[in-house]
Amino acid sequence: MWILEKNTPQQPGGLKQRVIGALLYCTGEMKQLHTHIQDKSFPLQLSEWCLRGISRVILLNNPLSGALILAALLLESPWQALLGMLGLLASTLTAIILGQDWEEVSSGLHGFNGMLVALLMGVFSSAGDWYWWLLLPVCLGGATTTFLSSSLAPVLERWDLPVSVFPFNTVIVLYLACTGTSNPYFPNYPAQPPGAPESTNHTQLHVPQLLQGMVLGVGQIFACDTLGPSLLILGAVFLFSPILAVHALLGSVISTVAGTYMSVHYSFLYSGLSGFNGALGCMVVGAFFIFSWRTHLLSIASALLSAYTDIALSNLLGVVGLPASSWAATLIGTLMLLLTGENLKEYRIPTGKVTSPEQNLHSHKQWSAANTNATDA
Amino acid sequence: MWILEKNTPQQPGGLKQRVIGALLYCTGEMKQLHTHIQDKSFPLQLSEWCLRGISRVILLNNPLSGALILAALLLESPWQALLGMLGLLASTLTAIILGQDWEEVSSGLHGFNGMLVALLMGVFSSAGDWYWWLLLPVCLGGATTTFLSSSLAPVLERWDLPVSVFPFNTVIVLYLACTGTSNPYFPNYPAQPPGAPESTNHTQLHVPQLLQGMVLGVGQIFACDTLGPSLLILGAVFLFSPILAVHALLGSVISTVAGTYMSVHYSFLYSGLSGFNGALGCMVVGAFFIFSWRTHLLSIASALLSAYTDIALSNLLGVVGLPASSWAATLIGTLMLLLTGENLKEYRIPTGKVTSPEQNLHSHKQWSAANTNATDA
Amino acid sequence: MWILEKNTPQQPGGLKQRVIGALLYCTGEMKQLHTHIQDKSFPLQLSEWCLRGISRVILLNNPLSGALILAALLLESPWQALLGMLGLLASTLTAIILGQDWEEVSSGLHGFNGMLVALLMGVFSSAGDWYWWLLLPVCLGGATTTFLSSSLAPVLERWDLPVSVFPFNTVIVLYLACTGTSNPYFPNYPAQPPGAPESTNHTQLHVPQLLQGMVLGVGQIFACDTLGPSLLILGAVFLFSPILAVHALLGSVISTVAGTYMSVHYSFLYSGLSGFNGALGCMVVGAFFIFSWRTHLLSIASALLSAYTDIALSNLLGVVGLPASSWAATLIGTLMLLLTGENLKEYRIPTGKVTSPEQNLHSHKQWSAANTNATDA
Repeated sequence: MWILEKNTPQQPGGLKQRVIGALLYCTGEMKQLHTHIQDKSFPLQLSEWCLRGISRVILLNNPLSGALILAALLLESPWQALLGMLGLLASTLTAIILGQDWEEVSSGLHGFNGMLVALLMGVFSSAGDWYWWLLLPVCLGGATTTFLSSSLAPVLERWDLPVSVFPFNTVIVLYLACTGTSNPYFPNYPAQPPGAPESTNHTQLHVPQLLQGMVLGVGQIFACDTLGPSLLILGAVFLFSPILAVHALLGSVISTVAGTYMSVHYSFLYSGLSGFNGALGCMVVGAFFIFSWRTHLLSIASALLSAYTDIALSNLLGVVGLPASSWAATLIGTLMLLLTGENLKEYRIPTGKVTSPEQNLHSHKQWSAANTNATDA
Repeated sequence: MWILEKNTPQQPGGLKQRVIGALLYCTGEMKQLHTHIQDKSFPLQLSEWCLRGISRVILLNNPLSGALILAALLLESPWQALLGMLGLLASTLTAIILGQDWEEVSSGLHGFNGMLVALLMGVFSSAGDWYWWLLLPVCLGGATTTFLSSSLAPVLERWDLPVSVFPFNTVIVLYLACTGTSNPYFPNYPAQPPGAPESTNHTQLHVPQLLQGMVLGVGQIFACDTLGPSLLILGAVFLFSPILAVHALLGSVISTVAGTYMSVHYSFLYSGLSGFNGALGCMVVGAFFIFSWRTHLLSIASALLSAYTDIALSNLLGVVGLPASSWAATLIGTLMLLLTGENLKEYRIPTGKVTSPEQNLHSHKQWSAANTNATDA
Repeated sequence: MWILEKNTPQQPGGLKQRVIGALLYCTGEMKQLHTHIQDKSFPLQLSEWCLRGISRVILLNNPLSGALILAALLLESPWQALLGMLGLLASTLTAIILGQDWEEVSSGLHGFNGMLVALLMGVFSSAGDWYWWLLLPVCLGGATTTFLSSSLAPVLERWDLPVSVFPFNTVIVLYLACTGTSNPYFPNYPAQPPGAPESTNHTQLHVPQLLQGMVLGVGQIFACDTLGPSLLILGAVFLFSPILAVHALLGSVISTVAGTYMSVHYSFLYSGLSGFNGALGCMVVGAFFIFSWRTHLLSIASALLSAYTDIALSNLLGVVGLPASSWAATLIGTLMLLLTGENLKEYRIPTGKVTSPEQNLHSHKQWSAANTNATDA
């Protein structure tokens, strides 16, 4: 229903119908806006690309979702939001200078890695907010992600894989390893491994905080650890696709519960740091496979594996004081996209054709129906 | 001779001839049994697949060898054998659920990684035998190896490479990094680096123990460190292919000697831990190349490189308390299969056509003879 | 001019013209010598291959440059030069035994990794000069690099990438991890991370020493840390291609300055250790892209990224006492060659067709002119 009505032309009707029409216009990929804006001025186009870029971080492709997330970031911390926007701009402009594919640039595919790098640089910087020197590495880091995604693309596309957040993960690890904790210009906080043998396990788990941590897991994808912005981000996902929003929350819940059984520090559970890799791992399967009960089981498995891999990588990288950021979800998600089993292959959507899960489901049903008719006749 | 007689139909004759006939039936790939069992009940088929899966760990493909190895494991520790079988079942059933290629599943290719993960989980667990909670990670770990091998296959097959034990090595490292030594549910022993600077080198090397360590090197592929089971495993290799058995022992000898000169801890030399990577590295060349003096030299080089790489990786991973398991042999073996030199290429057997070395040698000779006749005529 | 005159036949003329003729004969790839020497005796041919192999380390292909570099090494330390030549011979002979492509062997492509491994083994060995046992790992290490490059070639050539110094970097890291600092036969110095928190930053930077460090950066590619040999090596680059010499120096300058701002130890800046990765990163772009202002900007970016990545990797590997050798430049250089942007693609030279930048520029101009004429007509 969500889809069907959207494709039919909307006659002007009552207020209710107009509201529904407006709502449907705002959901999904908002292709109408994209075509509508193509003959507008460059700054207007660029801002649409950037908003799409923000939403790309969390596997969406909708400028309104991007705007909602930007609002969440501003609510969380204006300095962080500024850094994120700068990183996004730096990487998008680098992509334009390098002459990357126009279609990719305009759909925000060359911005989200730069934005994530900038956000994490801000989070790990121990120099405090409004430390203006940080804009230098933010710009350089943002530009570097574009180099990396431009280079990784030909390697990964041999197996029809997206570049996803490999560039972000690589650049942030290298940046933190390069600057360290005692750099005079760009000092950072050290990352804590989640399984360090401090005994906080005497005390009881605080269930309301745990439940809050599950919601924060969605916000932590953008390094947000307060409830309001996290809910706004979840709303942005819901706007693009309710199915993905369910996946995000489900993944975060699974991942947090898995963390509980691995006796992760309570602070990781409460702040959502245990949840965000699971949320991402779950969403990757939700976005790249057609929704069915089989792929739903797969998305649960993906969330579980992402959670455990994240704990393992965090423990390993924690030895040298580095965070595992979203390596776990990126690696497990990529593995899931490579699966060759007969029972899953037919549900996999080619990387270039991925839209919102609802749209994918709809196209798949139409195609199946057409196929059945053809064989009947 | 080993092969020729096997292919000619056996007339009923004296007792001696019957014994030879039965022996020949049991050696090599036992394809007759495989075709014979295909119309039998599912549990019977599954047990044949599992037995083949056990033998696949050590590059064999013979259910009787698998049964011998299972006996060796039971002799070593019934708890370990139980874990191994559970891991094997978990990964094989996951492969069936995912809809992996039937031919691969039925030849045991989707079980051996799960079995190895389960065995190593048992070896490293510090909770003692018959700790039933361990069955949970064993099942999950076994299933994960199937996901990994299903995902790695399309990547590696571009260069005609087998998945080999990459999934096992990845999963066991992640499991140990995730749980660590102080986990309340799944505590593990820390891995010791082989070159730690304790000075045990004052005392003299005990040669009989060193010789025993060379045999144990073959058993350590299955985490066996007693003589009886190791000899049974060596017998299982001999049953499939005498040439491979020679490679296994030779590789273990080379690797242990190399360890001696790298001043590895005596406990590593005596327990066979220094030998098993060399044994595997040597066997990979023995199994994937047609036997000749050139490839024999290559197999010695492979054993040597596996041994040194294992020491290096063990030292590196030992810093974070992790074992190098069989990473060294897997990486060096994969490199050997990629070699492009003209003098080696003609001996390389395509991955899908690998059988026992004796059979490979026989097919190669027939093919060469046919080729010579064709050019003569 | 540099090129044009070279291609026209030289008439005997005055002394000045003869000198220019001789100079032009010695610059670039010296193909005339290569064809001239092909019917000579094997030792003479082998020595030409080896000299080309020496020059290949620094992206050249000119036997005279190789001879100059050899002289620089002898000047620096005869023991080091001996080790280097032995590693070079070991890997070249292994390539001949393995039956690698004749064209590759004769242009020195299978020697330079072995030479670098041998040089670094000598530098890190704490057993002093003329410690003859070191010849054993030098020969084995040299041979191993050939195995590695033979194996990596089919993987990397899918994306038209050169093997470059991946084998060297892998083998030296494994060798140092395998032997460690307390090995009774092959002890090594531990590597110091460049950003260790000793406070040498009280004192002022000594500018003349910093300037010297920028020149030493070119010499450090061959582990030379004195001024004379470094200048000789720079001269060898100039002989092959003045453009590359500029890139080498520029890269070293950028990289050293970047190191200054990352508060790297002064000893790293003064000894050229901060500069050599930048030099190599800059030269890779200079050698594999046609010279223009766009690719010149790219080479600066490459030097900068190589410098920062080197600091990051050195800090990481320094935790386990290992050096980052030239991993940074190798990885960043490989990424640069993978860039897909439209504005850069046309400047990229296919790996098999790379000669000196001057020759590349000349061929490109001719080709462009021919193309323009064709479209005009």
